[in-house]
Amino acid sequence: MNEQLITHLPRWLEASRAHAHEGKVAAYIPELAKAPGNALGISIMGKTGETVAAGDTSLMFTMQSISKIFTLMLALVDNGEDGVFAKVGMEPTGDDFNSMLKLELVEPGKPFNPLINAGAIAVTSLIHGSSPAEKSGRVLRYFQDIAGGAPLAINEEVYRSESATAHRNRSLAYFLKDNEVLGEEIDVEDVLSVYFQHCSIEINVEQLSRMALVLAFNGTDPITGREHIPRRYVQIAKTFMLMCGMYNASGEFAIRAGIPAKSGVSGGILAMVPGIYGIGVVGPALGAKGNSTAGVHLLETLSGQLEWSMM
Amino acid sequence: MNEQLITHLPRWLEASRAHAHEGKVAAYIPELAKAPGNALGISIMGKTGETVAAGDTSLMFTMQSISKIFTLMLALVDNGEDGVFAKVGMEPTGDDFNSMLKLELVEPGKPFNPLINAGAIAVTSLIHGSSPAEKSGRVLRYFQDIAGGAPLAINEEVYRSESATAHRNRSLAYFLKDNEVLGEEIDVEDVLSVYFQHCSIEINVEQLSRMALVLAFNGTDPITGREHIPRRYVQIAKTFMLMCGMYNASGEFAIRAGIPAKSGVSGGILAMVPGIYGIGVVGPALGAKGNSTAGVHLLETLSGQLEWSMM
Amino acid sequence: MNEQLITHLPRWLEASRAHAHEGKVAAYIPELAKAPGNALGISIMGKTGETVAAGDTSLMFTMQSISKIFTLMLALVDNGEDGVFAKVGMEPTGDDFNSMLKLELVEPGKPFNPLINAGAIAVTSLIHGSSPAEKSGRVLRYFQDIAGGAPLAINEEVYRSESATAHRNRSLAYFLKDNEVLGEEIDVEDVLSVYFQHCSIEINVEQLSRMALVLAFNGTDPITGREHIPRRYVQIAKTFMLMCGMYNASGEFAIRAGIPAKSGVSGGILAMVPGIYGIGVVGPALGAKGNSTAGVHLLETLSGQLEWSMM
Amino acid sequence: MNEQLITHLPRWLEASRAHAHEGKVAAYIPELAKAPGNALGISIMGKTGETVAAGDTSLMFTMQSISKIFTLMLALVDNGEDGVFAKVGMEPTGDDFNSMLKLELVEPGKPFNPLINAGAIAVTSLIHGSSPAEKSGRVLRYFQDIAGGAPLAINEEVYRSESATAHRNRSLAYFLKDNEVLGEEIDVEDVLSVYFQHCSIEINVEQLSRMALVLAFNGTDPITGREHIPRRYVQIAKTFMLMCGMYNASGEFAIRAGIPAKSGVSGGILAMVPGIYGIGVVGPALGAKGNSTAGVHLLETLSGQLEWSMM
Repeated sequence: MNEQLITHLPRWLEASRAHAHEGKVAAYIPELAKAPGNALGISIMGKTGETVAAGDTSLMFTMQSISKIFTLMLALVDNGEDGVFAKVGMEPTGDDFNSMLKLELVEPGKPFNPLINAGAIAVTSLIHGSSPAEKSGRVLRYFQDIAGGAPLAINEEVYRSESATAHRNRSLAYFLKDNEVLGEEIDVEDVLSVYFQHCSIEINVEQLSRMALVLAFNGTDPITGREHIPRRYVQIAKTFMLMCGMYNASGEFAIRAGIPAKSGVSGGILAMVPGIYGIGVVGPALGAKGNSTAGVHLLETLSGQLEWSMM
Repeated sequence: MNEQLITHLPRWLEASRAHAHEGKVAAYIPELAKAPGNALGISIMGKTGETVAAGDTSLMFTMQSISKIFTLMLALVDNGEDGVFAKVGMEPTGDDFNSMLKLELVEPGKPFNPLINAGAIAVTSLIHGSSPAEKSGRVLRYFQDIAGGAPLAINEEVYRSESATAHRNRSLAYFLKDNEVLGEEIDVEDVLSVYFQHCSIEINVEQLSRMALVLAFNGTDPITGREHIPRRYVQIAKTFMLMCGMYNASGEFAIRAGIPAKSGVSGGILAMVPGIYGIGVVGPALGAKGNSTAGVHLLETLSGQLEWSMM
Repeated sequence: MNEQLITHLPRWLEASRAHAHEGKVAAYIPELAKAPGNALGISIMGKTGETVAAGDTSLMFTMQSISKIFTLMLALVDNGEDGVFAKVGMEPTGDDFNSMLKLELVEPGKPFNPLINAGAIAVTSLIHGSSPAEKSGRVLRYFQDIAGGAPLAINEEVYRSESATAHRNRSLAYFLKDNEVLGEEIDVEDVLSVYFQHCSIEINVEQLSRMALVLAFNGTDPITGREHIPRRYVQIAKTFMLMCGMYNASGEFAIRAGIPAKSGVSGGILAMVPGIYGIGVVGPALGAKGNSTAGVHLLETLSGQLEWSMM
Repeated sequence: MNEQLITHLPRWLEASRAHAHEGKVAAYIPELAKAPGNALGISIMGKTGETVAAGDTSLMFTMQSISKIFTLMLALVDNGEDGVFAKVGMEPTGDDFNSMLKLELVEPGKPFNPLINAGAIAVTSLIHGSSPAEKSGRVLRYFQDIAGGAPLAINEEVYRSESATAHRNRSLAYFLKDNEVLGEEIDVEDVLSVYFQHCSIEINVEQLSRMALVLAFNGTDPITGREHIPRRYVQIAKTFMLMCGMYNASGEFAIRAGIPAKSGVSGGILAMVPGIYGIGVVGPALGAKGNSTAGVHLLETLSGQLEWSMM
């Protein structure tokens, strides 16, 4: 583990925490609104499992959009590349994550990539299982395995609130049904229930850094030596993270930090330094483009100080 | 009744029927697909109830979007102008009738007018009644009264097919829910069931010409002398018909025919010569913009020959 | 001349003037910015030339978008309906008057109607003449004849300012060139110079009411008996005015006032009661949608009090 | 130099050449239309200057959009990061390279990134120089230096044709002027003349591979040891190439090949394996998204066979 990192992380974290006040905690459901706006926590894990952590590391948060990375890889395992990319594209889009513009304007109306909401819903519909419960169960176990084996759980209150209020996601899903991205045999509410459940899986930064570590080592957990995900699918996931993992600030983050990352509306960020570190961050206060203001500042600081950029 | 009209209508109708082959019968549900593509029928009713008719006058068809005119007036009766226009705008839109673009792009995201699908769904949500069944019942009786009192019925097969396949309308409705055009207390499926039911009311051209006659005489049936609709609300309805009653060919129809009209995907058209005639037309073959090709040709011929344009 | 109108007009005008403060004078060029924000003037002319006027009737203002109505009719005279509508559509659009969205999104990319800027530029390109100067000269004489024969002049300062700052119109014109709405033989700057000149023709409300009177009587000046414009072309112009004469508040104005009208960014409005009155209004303070707030209020008041609505 | 590459390149190139027939040579100007549709050439240069080449290596072609990478870096040298990114964004956009949608829809209306046309025009406007000729001269010398010093020239016929027909680029430029991305002091035609000139610089694949080599080695020519471009600016350029270098197929190329690349409408592609190779490709037949079909196939083959992906 890098000495400079061990020495300076607490100070860098506190400097970044000052940027929390530039953001606001997501408030569209009460369960997210009660997260502490000033919190910031990070865990950085190396290949033998050694970890440097700082700040609010015990804060539990839901994975939200971070889960889209792992459901994409599970859908690839279940359906292969051709099966997945028949339903979702490979291109970044400069539109909002919940936009319907390109679904209406671009023929054929399939979602541009698996990380916008429409694309992630399409991906979730591809996960194998004979019932929503079986699918959710598979997802949860898959996430758990990658996170090192300790049990993960769905936050039921978040799940119920998301499900009850997610009219825009319902609108997207029915649009996909109309465009035949969701086929005739697919029940929209079933897909959404699996989708809201994987968004509601609760985690902390250390578990998140373990999941990131597996990606940093191309799908094989360097601590156990166990291959969780085929290398090719990790490569695909990392490419999407670099291009569109940070909503409409993905380009800016790629230029400033230059590492694959995926953020969620709970303020979590999964990031990695390929071949070296898996990283989990949480900072609930979000900027205008939906990313943790303090979390982004911290990752950009680290990348700058330690020359992490892949580019 | 105009002599020229009586003499020439059969010939004009046959000349217009030749334009049916330029269109295609709507095929998104099987019940619409079986309509006869070559059919064309018209009924023109004057203020004493005298009628000139020609062609396929016995063909029954569902009202589809024509119903939006009458649900708008019922919603105005129930809520007043301010109540209705709090939820829906007054402006034409050059987008498709089922477009979501302006809902996403223009703030606040309320539907531009009551004749596009999003606007019509919002209007339907405003109809009073303690249950969907009561609302549908009120709509059906309202339509029946205006049509002269003889019973009208919902085509149940069309209703069920529409309801089962209308993913785009569901998508629109959930978008409206997200935009708070449909309020918290409103159940999307309830609104849609009323909406699909009023679209599925079955009618023939004579009944349609009677409904049009009431509008042509500002809401009062000139045959019975009974006032069905306040004059102001008819004025509003006629203005929308002139500006946006014929989908994205409304401007062209206003310039060519110059009379208020509303078309539906079943090939029906309700039109009127204000103060003179109510008109019902049906011709199931639709052009690229969703209007009956033969029906539009016939109305443009009549307006040209008999100088019907209001402009 | 209506007694009620003569009696009450001064009072109604002052009541409407109170709405001027809800708007703001256009400020994109200095020449427009210096117009008096609190001004409001109106002239209403009947078929023998008798006139009722009130308020700031001596204020001179440039015609701006009002001129588009008359260049449309001149282009129709020069090219016929088919010639004009090969280059411009007949449909209202819910987009901004200077929007490029539909030019890019809808195939073929021709302007939706002659009253949005793109459409008006296309129309101007169709006016006959061997040079921009000859075209502008024809336009000026055409306007002058319709306005009763007294000389009109181009405000050269406004013209030069418009021409120097109208980057968005240049952008639109080059887009039209790219879409081949402006053909190969057409020089963009030549078209724009004619366009900016007809927008810069200076007028007062009395002259404007005379121009409106000619339209109200289907193209024939009822005072002189001289036919200036074929009836059919006036019909087309009135239809566009009703559907899209008041920018994105056209539908609202049609529902509230129900008479054909066209507004300009200088605060002028030309309106008419078909077969009865020609009306000129000026009130430089504009609302959010680009129409004179006081002027719109006054016309809606008059239409309501005197039952002017055509609908 | 990799043995496998030396041995198999001719065979791989011929296999990829078979995909040329899937594309079409750009025909919007006659000078591009006469390029040989079946041509395919590649040059791959290593750090000591050793080169493997195959196919149509002597074909001269204009740089077109490839030039945008180098003008971006020159603008960064002239203005710094803050200066450049005040005028252009950092985000990929799923729209067409010449789209105006986001300029109109997203506030503030600055171009999303430096590789779409609007962004590249904004970047060109930032290049220092007291006249268009001086700016073009600086650009040409900068390109020449990076390409190894041998003289490069502007293809004057291409330049004149581009300039005469590029109405869409003129439209974009005036839109930028309206949005104040191009400031008051900037003459649109001056900017466009520099832009069309750098797009018209003629090159062959060997020269292109030398330019790519400098980027592959972070701005320092490994053959001469001379630093041409600050490392940070190369990092920025490579990030944009990975995210949006291949028009609306950038994501697909990143997932399939995983190396920074930039294509042009002449069929050229500049690519690199960071730290190892600079690559120049030409194949004039373009696919639906504007990239050389054979060229893309060849780069994907090479990346797959030789494991070049950065991800």
